[in-house]
Amino acid sequence: MPKNVPVVEKILSANDQLARENRLAIDAAGVFSINVMASPGAGKTSLIEQTVRALTGKLRVGMINGDIATSLDADRAAAAGAAAVQINTGGDCHLDAVMLHDALPRLDLRSLDLLIVENVGNLVCPASFALGTHKNVLVASIPEGDDKPYKYPGMYRGVEAVVINKIDLLPYVTFRMDYFRQGIEVLNPGVAQFALSCSTGEGLGGWLDWLTAQVRKR
Amino acid sequence: MPKNVPVVEKILSANDQLARENRLAIDAAGVFSINVMASPGAGKTSLIEQTVRALTGKLRVGMINGDIATSLDADRAAAAGAAAVQINTGGDCHLDAVMLHDALPRLDLRSLDLLIVENVGNLVCPASFALGTHKNVLVASIPEGDDKPYKYPGMYRGVEAVVINKIDLLPYVTFRMDYFRQGIEVLNPGVAQFALSCSTGEGLGGWLDWLTAQVRKR
Repeated sequence: MPKNVPVVEKILSANDQLARENRLAIDAAGVFSINVMASPGAGKTSLIEQTVRALTGKLRVGMINGDIATSLDADRAAAAGAAAVQINTGGDCHLDAVMLHDALPRLDLRSLDLLIVENVGNLVCPASFALGTHKNVLVASIPEGDDKPYKYPGMYRGVEAVVINKIDLLPYVTFRMDYFRQGIEVLNPGVAQFALSCSTGEGLGGWLDWLTAQVRKR
Repeated sequence: MPKNVPVVEKILSANDQLARENRLAIDAAGVFSINVMASPGAGKTSLIEQTVRALTGKLRVGMINGDIATSLDADRAAAAGAAAVQINTGGDCHLDAVMLHDALPRLDLRSLDLLIVENVGNLVCPASFALGTHKNVLVASIPEGDDKPYKYPGMYRGVEAVVINKIDLLPYVTFRMDYFRQGIEVLNPGVAQFALSCSTGEGLGGWLDWLTAQVRKR
């Protein structure tokens, strides 16, 4: 009879192991968490500002902002009323589980209902690094163009919600919403989608309802 | 007397060595070349389309387009009249000198005056990889917001020209041009700047004059 040989089925990467630890810490505190990704300037920070303002008095929100440099985004989130921590990646093009692991103890997780992590503005690299958050959210924007799902499939495939921001600019740019949504549907069938404008507030209700429902489910 | 010890002053990285080879090949053909970088959707391809159309009959233009997936951009450049080659990076967030080295033989360089390389849409990673082109051009766009130089300093520091695209959208978004230009000026004093709209054609003349002058200087 052959000797038993230990078989290691799947070895987690160092990043994935730490992402799992992050998740355990977030879960232990009873918090729901999202990882918000987008191109530079699609409106991640504006969406977070609007979300924090709208949820004030209803949910307790904490923020961790990742950027190459500056604390401009954390400053905006803090001004909107969130407990905010800034991570400067020092040149790195994405957050990873190590950075989140270092930042988490800077927030009092048990005093929060919702943790929003704002990733570095980049449609490529952040898709490859799990952080340990519960859901991935992509913020797309109208002036970026309707071909983005086709050109950045990895990002569009790996998210649980797509926010389509800046719909107030639809009259001024060429953007075929059908073509755009078709691209999303092929890559990520049935993913939650919210067309809205952080400038005018149009469509924000659907996004806020979805997010609040996710928090309540925990 | 001490024995002579060989001192290696600066060892080029593999990428930089290959970038130097690319430059030699481009120079040998008498071609002027630019590396166009931007966020996803800032308008690299639109700028290239307009540039190729405007220069038809004046300069012979070749294109190498880098994308994660699809040949949508090369198709657009080819339709505008350029000899075009598509590089699919297969997930990589930037072009590098190896990819350009592989693509160059696909173009008849000696039949060209100007080679435009369109990098992957990304404000972080492409800044770290020399390709061997003569000048780096960054396409910024109004709806991305006026804080981008402050948040992506590496990219703004490493270019010889900044095109500020989509000025036709200035009436519809909040964008402090002074604040934006101040950020550029601190990082990259005196860099060439061209505010324009690829949709309306406003301001394209200044960009085309600069580019044509660079080609003529060779």
